[in-house]
Amino acid sequence: MLQNFNIPSLPTEHPSRIEQLRTLLNTVPLDGFIVPRSDVHQGEFVAPKDERLAWLTGFTGSAGMAVVLHHKVGLFVDGRYQTQAKLQINLEEIELVSSSDTKLTDWLIKELAHDDARIGFDPWLMTHGQISKAKKKLSGTRTQLIPVGHNPIDQLWTDQPPVSSAPARIHPLEYAGKTHDDKRAEIAEILKAAHLHAAILTLPDSIAWLLNIRGNDINHNPIIQSFAIIYDSGKVTLFVNYEKVGNIRDHFNSHVRIASPEMFCKEVEALQGRVLLDKDSAPFHIAAICKNKKFGQDPCLLPKACKNLIEIKGAIAAHMRDAVAMIEVLAWIDNQHPNSITEIDVVKRLEDERRKDPQFEDISFDTIAGTGSNGAIVHYRVSEDTNALLESGHLLVLDSGGQYRDGTTDVTRTIPIGEVTSEKKSAYTRVAKGMINMSRLHWPSDLAGRDIEIVGRIPLWDAHLDFDHGLGHGVGSFLSVHEGPQRLSKSSHIPLRPGMILSNEPGYYREGQFGIRIENLLVVEEAQPRPDEDSHRSMLCWRTLTLVPLDRRLILVDILGIEERHWLNNYHATVKKEISPFVSPSAKKWLERQTAPI
Amino acid sequence: MLQNFNIPSLPTEHPSRIEQLRTLLNTVPLDGFIVPRSDVHQGEFVAPKDERLAWLTGFTGSAGMAVVLHHKVGLFVDGRYQTQAKLQINLEEIELVSSSDTKLTDWLIKELAHDDARIGFDPWLMTHGQISKAKKKLSGTRTQLIPVGHNPIDQLWTDQPPVSSAPARIHPLEYAGKTHDDKRAEIAEILKAAHLHAAILTLPDSIAWLLNIRGNDINHNPIIQSFAIIYDSGKVTLFVNYEKVGNIRDHFNSHVRIASPEMFCKEVEALQGRVLLDKDSAPFHIAAICKNKKFGQDPCLLPKACKNLIEIKGAIAAHMRDAVAMIEVLAWIDNQHPNSITEIDVVKRLEDERRKDPQFEDISFDTIAGTGSNGAIVHYRVSEDTNALLESGHLLVLDSGGQYRDGTTDVTRTIPIGEVTSEKKSAYTRVAKGMINMSRLHWPSDLAGRDIEIVGRIPLWDAHLDFDHGLGHGVGSFLSVHEGPQRLSKSSHIPLRPGMILSNEPGYYREGQFGIRIENLLVVEEAQPRPDEDSHRSMLCWRTLTLVPLDRRLILVDILGIEERHWLNNYHATVKKEISPFVSPSAKKWLERQTAPI
Repeated sequence: MLQNFNIPSLPTEHPSRIEQLRTLLNTVPLDGFIVPRSDVHQGEFVAPKDERLAWLTGFTGSAGMAVVLHHKVGLFVDGRYQTQAKLQINLEEIELVSSSDTKLTDWLIKELAHDDARIGFDPWLMTHGQISKAKKKLSGTRTQLIPVGHNPIDQLWTDQPPVSSAPARIHPLEYAGKTHDDKRAEIAEILKAAHLHAAILTLPDSIAWLLNIRGNDINHNPIIQSFAIIYDSGKVTLFVNYEKVGNIRDHFNSHVRIASPEMFCKEVEALQGRVLLDKDSAPFHIAAICKNKKFGQDPCLLPKACKNLIEIKGAIAAHMRDAVAMIEVLAWIDNQHPNSITEIDVVKRLEDERRKDPQFEDISFDTIAGTGSNGAIVHYRVSEDTNALLESGHLLVLDSGGQYRDGTTDVTRTIPIGEVTSEKKSAYTRVAKGMINMSRLHWPSDLAGRDIEIVGRIPLWDAHLDFDHGLGHGVGSFLSVHEGPQRLSKSSHIPLRPGMILSNEPGYYREGQFGIRIENLLVVEEAQPRPDEDSHRSMLCWRTLTLVPLDRRLILVDILGIEERHWLNNYHATVKKEISPFVSPSAKKWLERQTAPI
Repeated sequence: MLQNFNIPSLPTEHPSRIEQLRTLLNTVPLDGFIVPRSDVHQGEFVAPKDERLAWLTGFTGSAGMAVVLHHKVGLFVDGRYQTQAKLQINLEEIELVSSSDTKLTDWLIKELAHDDARIGFDPWLMTHGQISKAKKKLSGTRTQLIPVGHNPIDQLWTDQPPVSSAPARIHPLEYAGKTHDDKRAEIAEILKAAHLHAAILTLPDSIAWLLNIRGNDINHNPIIQSFAIIYDSGKVTLFVNYEKVGNIRDHFNSHVRIASPEMFCKEVEALQGRVLLDKDSAPFHIAAICKNKKFGQDPCLLPKACKNLIEIKGAIAAHMRDAVAMIEVLAWIDNQHPNSITEIDVVKRLEDERRKDPQFEDISFDTIAGTGSNGAIVHYRVSEDTNALLESGHLLVLDSGGQYRDGTTDVTRTIPIGEVTSEKKSAYTRVAKGMINMSRLHWPSDLAGRDIEIVGRIPLWDAHLDFDHGLGHGVGSFLSVHEGPQRLSKSSHIPLRPGMILSNEPGYYREGQFGIRIENLLVVEEAQPRPDEDSHRSMLCWRTLTLVPLDRRLILVDILGIEERHWLNNYHATVKKEISPFVSPSAKKWLERQTAPI
């Protein structure tokens, strides 16, 4: 299995680890230490060796940060992870803080009051932006932030897993759609136009995109953990262990030089001319040693986000094959008696179905299969001790995806086990309305995710419901399932552009009771003129990639508007036409029923 | 008549005025001069003596700015005023610049290139924020901005109208709902909490609200043009000519001191302790002489925006009486033959109807009555030379309001003259859908105008239509018809709060052909719990104040959703029930027809 169901660490171990850390801090001496979830690349997913926050606190969510003081530990997590954190951490030992309500610096000011406090941080794990913002906020206080050369967690963590040695692979032109020569030339033009000599690339998926390579350094993320420098000449230096790229040396021509990771800092220090650093992800340490730096956005982000026609073709094909796996599993679940299978059975079965496709390389994240109250945990990951039976009257939230060589998928469906209450159906229908109305939307081409994301919420608001996560995230092309800069979220100011792939995933969560989420992936397209159009407006719209039916048994038709109903019936007709030739006879029968017009 | 239909100034005079200005600038010497539309209070409406921009260029819109250089004049206006400006200015003499596309500083940089240029500005007419932003942008160039003590336009304008001598009146407690003692105490608390000694009030409607006074210094705006200082003790010094307040001296107790306007600068200079200045409106000159200044938001803005229960009761009553006038006029227009009445006839008739109410004091702005292509001019003001017949097949956009002692109204209806094309009906229906969907909206209580304003646009986007103005503006309580800080606009980050009154006015404009706009005023309320509510969310919703039917003859029912149709039928039933007892028999008959369910 690509996914495991281990209980991450025993909550009982954490108090002693925290005490060990405090003892070690005393020797420096430091009055506290910041332990972020992130690794040196600030990615959402990290290697096992970088799970320092989980090792220390038990919290395994994809975003968060702990601060260990001598009298207290604070764990800062956002709205998505409040429920999960409560279950994973020792609440007597650790104070759970909502990062949306309380900033780390405000908490430090409150906790440290008038002390002369020295708080340590790892300058590779935190960004220049994070630290300078925090320093500014703390400037009136007696609290100092101190970079610590050797991470104390790494010193204490005796069985810390090793660094990945997985080799790099070529991402061929038939999927990439563009050679790395062309991509490097494109980025060089961007640098020249901005009068920049070079850009330091600290994001592994930017490097993977730029050089058309993929790897296996992080579960479910086909990347190589590496740094690179691209020059305004188009030349690139890739800092990576030689053995990881030995087998694909021919792929790199004379314009791509391989250098040992140990050389990275030295070469950054030696850079002449203006150098671009990604303001959101460049480690504090790199920013500190780079002489003539200019903070901006990683120049690969936008070209990577706007998929080319070959990548979109790949995404369409990958989503069709992924739909076959999903539909087989949904049909299979429906054929089981209530109370006969578990969440783990569903996860395993889904992985088995996806594995049947020869292009399948990995799942794109740990499958979320949450039934009953587990469905209310937004980023639930089933383990042996939480594994629940699919009981009659419950909803199952099934959120999963695959890494195919031609594209990355991410799909969520919520299904009823047996007969469910009309309250659940009503909430489901409102979530569906939100998903459908966003899918139908046409919008002026200069708008950002934040300008349109409420479309997926309005039907929920109407019943005074809402959800505490963004409506959608960007998705890579056989790359990270969460990819920036595009997002459908209140804080995303990046204008949406043709070729961007995003998820559209409204939900509703009633803590301790049930959860609902429906998610399709969509790609931004230029809208075709409408019959009654005035010709001046350039408009964008979506093409839906995901082809899996919504559960029509959960839809209260009276709550759907006529246009929403039309959209759903058309969508289901497309799903049936495109996917039914490829599924088993029993899944075909199920698909016929599920796609009948309502 | 409160409204006149004069042609503002002959376009032929402007070239000579521009030449006179250039000659005067040479004597200083200056290479250019900035002429904004605004007066010293940065309000949207200005006194005749402050119409410097119109005097110089002919442009009479409520926002804009000209820059006179020796070789060129640039007039910067936003999307709302492009069409109007094209008709009003001499395009051979003046370059019309879209202020949304080109910033004044960028234009100056382009036009002045490598010259050592001295560009003058009046430090009373421009704000500290405007000038410091512009100076920053120009810092790398050889262009300087020079404050000019005596405005050169005032020197050239021989028949400049005099300063208003209209007396102040008391705004009684039965309409204000709160004494000025209570309001001053409330503001004093805000100052104390922010460790401020005083706030300089430069906005006349803040002063009018704070002291419960009204005036007649600006057409259609019942304010006194004045400055004031409020101290953290709650004491106020009001800088105004004694004769303007002589008749209401008893209204001010010992806590409100009257001082001559000439003393204002001296007292600002003498202020000790931290002093709050409104960052958006404080004149450059005042900011320059204030020693220990802190830029922020005028402390009266938010309390003024959140109307109290007495003010809301007043608004409801004023809107009912205003609806009677509107319905009489709409019924009257409908009884006229096409091609028999003009736009000016409509404006006059509407003013006559409003005047019948004893509480009526003024119109709240010059009525916009635009038929045919005039309807596409968003802020059209009819004059003798543009006055058009209401022709069969045309639409009439009628946007108007009244200043009643208990409230300010602002309503727009679009009506057909004879039979109109289905293209116009289709666009009208989409505008109506936008207006209705915003009116029906419930939303989480921390959101700002910018978060929800797209609700009024989505049905237009669906047909690739849109409009180039915000969805709505704040409205005062017997004060300015355009009042901040609340707005329904892409740039408004102020959270909406209970008691705020806003307009909801989507539109559609096809230049040279026709225009459509529908506008209701709404007040923000806390939403009552919904039957299927989860109890955690605090939600807001609207109560509609305006009670005038939409034109059902323009609605294509097939484009309306079922919930939109319900809303409209309910709204019309309310209008009929509330207003029909007060209208004439012929208007009553018309109202019956117009409010029949669709």
